[in-house]
Amino acid sequence: MNGNRFGRLFQLTTFGESHGEAMGVTVSGCPAGLELDEADVQAELDRRKPGQSHITTSRGEPDAVAIKSGVQDGYTTGTPIGMVIENKDARSGKYEPFITAPRPSHGDFTYSAKFGTRNWGGGGRSSARETVNWVAAGAIAKKILATEGVEVRAHVNQIGDIEAPPVSWEDLGEHTEENEVRCAHPETAEEMRDLIDEYQEAGDSIGGSVYFETRGVPRGLGAPRFDGVPSRLGQAFMSIPATTAFEFGLGRGAREVAGIDRNEDWEFDADGDPVPVGNDHGGLQGGITTGEPIYGEITWHAPTSIPKEQTTVDWETGEEKEAQVIGRHDPVLPPRAVPVVEAMLACTLLDFMLLGGRINPDRLDGQPGEYDTDYHPSQPE
Amino acid sequence: MNGNRFGRLFQLTTFGESHGEAMGVTVSGCPAGLELDEADVQAELDRRKPGQSHITTSRGEPDAVAIKSGVQDGYTTGTPIGMVIENKDARSGKYEPFITAPRPSHGDFTYSAKFGTRNWGGGGRSSARETVNWVAAGAIAKKILATEGVEVRAHVNQIGDIEAPPVSWEDLGEHTEENEVRCAHPETAEEMRDLIDEYQEAGDSIGGSVYFETRGVPRGLGAPRFDGVPSRLGQAFMSIPATTAFEFGLGRGAREVAGIDRNEDWEFDADGDPVPVGNDHGGLQGGITTGEPIYGEITWHAPTSIPKEQTTVDWETGEEKEAQVIGRHDPVLPPRAVPVVEAMLACTLLDFMLLGGRINPDRLDGQPGEYDTDYHPSQPE
Amino acid sequence: MNGNRFGRLFQLTTFGESHGEAMGVTVSGCPAGLELDEADVQAELDRRKPGQSHITTSRGEPDAVAIKSGVQDGYTTGTPIGMVIENKDARSGKYEPFITAPRPSHGDFTYSAKFGTRNWGGGGRSSARETVNWVAAGAIAKKILATEGVEVRAHVNQIGDIEAPPVSWEDLGEHTEENEVRCAHPETAEEMRDLIDEYQEAGDSIGGSVYFETRGVPRGLGAPRFDGVPSRLGQAFMSIPATTAFEFGLGRGAREVAGIDRNEDWEFDADGDPVPVGNDHGGLQGGITTGEPIYGEITWHAPTSIPKEQTTVDWETGEEKEAQVIGRHDPVLPPRAVPVVEAMLACTLLDFMLLGGRINPDRLDGQPGEYDTDYHPSQPE
Amino acid sequence: MNGNRFGRLFQLTTFGESHGEAMGVTVSGCPAGLELDEADVQAELDRRKPGQSHITTSRGEPDAVAIKSGVQDGYTTGTPIGMVIENKDARSGKYEPFITAPRPSHGDFTYSAKFGTRNWGGGGRSSARETVNWVAAGAIAKKILATEGVEVRAHVNQIGDIEAPPVSWEDLGEHTEENEVRCAHPETAEEMRDLIDEYQEAGDSIGGSVYFETRGVPRGLGAPRFDGVPSRLGQAFMSIPATTAFEFGLGRGAREVAGIDRNEDWEFDADGDPVPVGNDHGGLQGGITTGEPIYGEITWHAPTSIPKEQTTVDWETGEEKEAQVIGRHDPVLPPRAVPVVEAMLACTLLDFMLLGGRINPDRLDGQPGEYDTDYHPSQPE
Repeated sequence: MNGNRFGRLFQLTTFGESHGEAMGVTVSGCPAGLELDEADVQAELDRRKPGQSHITTSRGEPDAVAIKSGVQDGYTTGTPIGMVIENKDARSGKYEPFITAPRPSHGDFTYSAKFGTRNWGGGGRSSARETVNWVAAGAIAKKILATEGVEVRAHVNQIGDIEAPPVSWEDLGEHTEENEVRCAHPETAEEMRDLIDEYQEAGDSIGGSVYFETRGVPRGLGAPRFDGVPSRLGQAFMSIPATTAFEFGLGRGAREVAGIDRNEDWEFDADGDPVPVGNDHGGLQGGITTGEPIYGEITWHAPTSIPKEQTTVDWETGEEKEAQVIGRHDPVLPPRAVPVVEAMLACTLLDFMLLGGRINPDRLDGQPGEYDTDYHPSQPE
Repeated sequence: MNGNRFGRLFQLTTFGESHGEAMGVTVSGCPAGLELDEADVQAELDRRKPGQSHITTSRGEPDAVAIKSGVQDGYTTGTPIGMVIENKDARSGKYEPFITAPRPSHGDFTYSAKFGTRNWGGGGRSSARETVNWVAAGAIAKKILATEGVEVRAHVNQIGDIEAPPVSWEDLGEHTEENEVRCAHPETAEEMRDLIDEYQEAGDSIGGSVYFETRGVPRGLGAPRFDGVPSRLGQAFMSIPATTAFEFGLGRGAREVAGIDRNEDWEFDADGDPVPVGNDHGGLQGGITTGEPIYGEITWHAPTSIPKEQTTVDWETGEEKEAQVIGRHDPVLPPRAVPVVEAMLACTLLDFMLLGGRINPDRLDGQPGEYDTDYHPSQPE
Repeated sequence: MNGNRFGRLFQLTTFGESHGEAMGVTVSGCPAGLELDEADVQAELDRRKPGQSHITTSRGEPDAVAIKSGVQDGYTTGTPIGMVIENKDARSGKYEPFITAPRPSHGDFTYSAKFGTRNWGGGGRSSARETVNWVAAGAIAKKILATEGVEVRAHVNQIGDIEAPPVSWEDLGEHTEENEVRCAHPETAEEMRDLIDEYQEAGDSIGGSVYFETRGVPRGLGAPRFDGVPSRLGQAFMSIPATTAFEFGLGRGAREVAGIDRNEDWEFDADGDPVPVGNDHGGLQGGITTGEPIYGEITWHAPTSIPKEQTTVDWETGEEKEAQVIGRHDPVLPPRAVPVVEAMLACTLLDFMLLGGRINPDRLDGQPGEYDTDYHPSQPE
Repeated sequence: MNGNRFGRLFQLTTFGESHGEAMGVTVSGCPAGLELDEADVQAELDRRKPGQSHITTSRGEPDAVAIKSGVQDGYTTGTPIGMVIENKDARSGKYEPFITAPRPSHGDFTYSAKFGTRNWGGGGRSSARETVNWVAAGAIAKKILATEGVEVRAHVNQIGDIEAPPVSWEDLGEHTEENEVRCAHPETAEEMRDLIDEYQEAGDSIGGSVYFETRGVPRGLGAPRFDGVPSRLGQAFMSIPATTAFEFGLGRGAREVAGIDRNEDWEFDADGDPVPVGNDHGGLQGGITTGEPIYGEITWHAPTSIPKEQTTVDWETGEEKEAQVIGRHDPVLPPRAVPVVEAMLACTLLDFMLLGGRINPDRLDGQPGEYDTDYHPSQPE
């Protein structure tokens, strides 16, 4: 109800404001026996970190994670993993003009309207800084998924009107991290960067989108309707700050396609299992996985904090005033959102894997002193 | 976890398969004192009913709702409202060929892959027949929302490549129910119907989308992130069978818009409250309502059950076979989905209203023998 | 939040009032492939049925259950099981005097204070008639538990000041259903029946308690703290109408026992697994099962609806008045509560078994047309 | 599912092991505008702190709380409050003998049986150290409840066979904190302390119980059945480590009382509202509050970690061995459990108050820059 919890069996609970003392996430439901240390989490946090390039905010956060519980001698114990990330470079001062005068199209007004007050430094709880918690949790989810051969990838497929051509799964793996835009198509990435530069120089910002894809998700995962994979992904992705659209498979374009063109015949694969002859369905039929890759797209509007001159009103003085947001802000969101999308995708899929009894604890590494339980949620062979 | 529950304070729990004995929904959390009878619910069910026109399935279901509990002398008592809708015109026989040979792009395979079995008659639990339960619950939600001046409307804004121009709130109210397509722009509705006829005659089907809008939603509703209004709407709408995309505000188009163009200055309204000078944000900033109308769009792919010849495989015989779905099916989904969208929107908004203490029980009618509680969740005046 | 939902993976959602049209329960999360028909459920309902003997209410309810969904060709399909039990012998008239004048110590006042109104016929939603829904769900839970060798038993161990001596597991199985009191110690049962007769003849009622025990619950079931087995049993049993106490193991008596006397050494069993040398711990250590039988006790106060003369006040007239409850009521609750205790115990344990991946779908029977999923939540050997 | 979450609208999520780096709790759902600093929380933590007297463990934990989020300029902002308490005096070494050889009647075996591993230092996650998190959350709950005049008190009413006579509400307030046993009856406290000394000197331990009581809880709070106040208290209290029984009102003794004796007539209070003429019902009828004080009792078995010689087995070596637990342990639990009981009682009641719209934000203090929302969940006058 309070917006800081996600997941059913693999659960995250978060706290923290942009310019508060620290961010934190408690991960519950992580299976015991996973080898885990702070470096595993740090690697993902570094991908999301501010100040990583000239097209991201210049805020100087090291985003160093401390694991406070749930790990012993390098292995998870099955009990909650508490993680804390201290905020180091918080400079709330410049947000004082906006305490009672909301920034245009930001969450300033709505948070105040809901709570009667708000953490005003850097957007407080409404800031995308919250997603550092999600990426920390996602790092753990990814590592568990890997034990079952499930992998997620994403890249920036459009910035403004510059759209990348379709890229392969291999491209996603090889090229996404090569450039600061995180577009897996190198030439398009350059064009995107130039466009971003243009907007940034003009004191403006621009929207964009991210494409995601999976491999290794088993068939039969998900549940009917309200707990279908699309429903849970819909909740997960529309929770990311500044998103305005989510689609999978043919997405919005599906409305122009005839049934006979979109429908996919069934044939047998090498193991004698039915497989569809295509993947316009995006890996999901009736909300449940077919075993084909799940893919889709998420859209972000342009960041609202821009140096360009705008107008606002002060509800305390009752006067109109100028709103120029000088802070350290991203001119575009998708590049840093790529690890966030991957994190939420991983957390959602792991949750479904756990619900479906698909995580085999015997594939985890275990640790000294272990007891041979007869708990075996999944034994495919 | 099982896909049949929605909502936090206003909760629905459903059961039923397309060709089973009955559909049913238990609505919990409905405030006491609402005047309610079966006719209130029936009116909405009739909008969703099969066989209402030649562009809908010819299945002859009266969809008569029986309220089994939670209402006394015509008023709700605050305890769960159990509703049952008997299935009358179920003819499972023609689905026998598909028991072990999944229909192309339907949920047949995925349900069997998840459960090892499935209700195979008419798609069983994966059928959109389930949404009759949602519409029943939504009818109650709408009636409560009305006591606070909150209203929702929707219409079909695109079928295939035929797109309706933007329509006004008034048009939505006046024209949507005038034609069988449920498009509030009459001329476009005719074009849409012709297109649907074409596909139907060809034994094919086509996709489409629905636009929705609200009035009267107060500012400050919703919660950060995972419980933001977009997140909960994302879950709600992506739960509707055959949906492939959800967006609000500028939606997917937001990626091509500059910050300075999308951002909206604040000004004072007549009451001295800050209001934005536009509504590109779709009524939501930081996941919380601004008080402006919430609007957006949902896309459906073409129905998968079509008479055209297709190919499938039988996992029991190990043989390929022809799949021709002769049943009674809709050639297009949005027209009957309009009341479903309204229902899920109403249920989601009511849930937020209850969480925000915004439903004033004193505006409900009460009933004989009532006790003057001092429970007053909302006293705006 | 609304009091009609129980369970995490095995979920029940109920509706219905004592003198309403029908009672109903939707069971979600029942594994697919269980052979199930109405007779399985009916057998348990008959144990709880009113009018089964002269020490129970004379209300003539057949309590015939109708399964509306979730079963096909005699086997569960994994989708929600909707069950409805019509109320046949409702005679609300005699409750009219109490609409605005609450019966002493009943839920009449508190329900009205909460909701401003209430279903007043026969106690409406506050009536123990609600537990018919739980027994229906419990019948299914018991049947699934049996596939893994888990069994639950209960009997009435005290009525008024008449206490039964400890009875064996075998006695619980053989003697509980032999007498109308449901006490597994036949001589005590007779004494209890005489005592109940005495109270009933005097127009009065009396309290009592039920002892429960399990066999076959595997070790390692449960979770820390808020999801420990005692916590969930605490919630389950304290939800039963008119309960005032719950304990397990040494219970309340544990406070007088020294650590060295209650502590139990560990030794190896035949399989080389550690087992405790006694069971003062009641099968639970740290909230998690040891594999020993879980046992405990639940207490009910005397039924509040009695023919003896009492006094109440009418909040509408502002006047004091006589309250003589002439209806058809039980003079004592535990005899009919035995199946309710077993049901809630079974539902709670099944929920934990499912969470722990301990229900092996391969031990269920399956049905025609099944697909060989690779979903295997538990494969112990 | 993972045992670290409690509450519906007022939610706690915890992490931490006895000898891990830190304990932590995230409190979500705390209303905005409450004046709050670390000293408010610290005062309660100090009541639970180890080493506070010679009858508690000598572990030297300062239990200093750090609030990491959710508070700005001394007032809560409505967003999650993250609190961290570092563990300072962890000495895991002495637990090494028990890694693969479970202590008698402790959670050692069951945690290993569930997870295949466990945090073995000081009992890890199964340790009552976890309750430091609950007390921190409870401190906040108490402060909010106070704004509505709701108060909770508790004291130790029995240790071994020494039972305190009934004490008044005033005694609970004045005498509980006067002695190290936390018994509000000073003479009995002395006897209890002597008894505890005896057990401690003998290298043994002893059980006991705590009585709790409330004032100011409004009538009509709670919900039917599974969300009744007794159900939620049952879950809350049975979650406290080492509890074996919970009762309210006449509790277990109710089974020996006749209906006519326990039933309480209704009369009018000064305001013309019906009130019962006694409180054998313990403030709760039909699971919902009558407005009378809620009272009850919780029992703890003797602490299991005792220096006396015992026997265990090592599942790695396959050998029997001696188990002498030399650590720093409490000889009795109730004295330090008093603040834990109060905390869980406060958290549970606040949750119900929020669900019932009974916390009036206007009674909180607010803070600079606040916006005049029209959110008024409760306006009694």
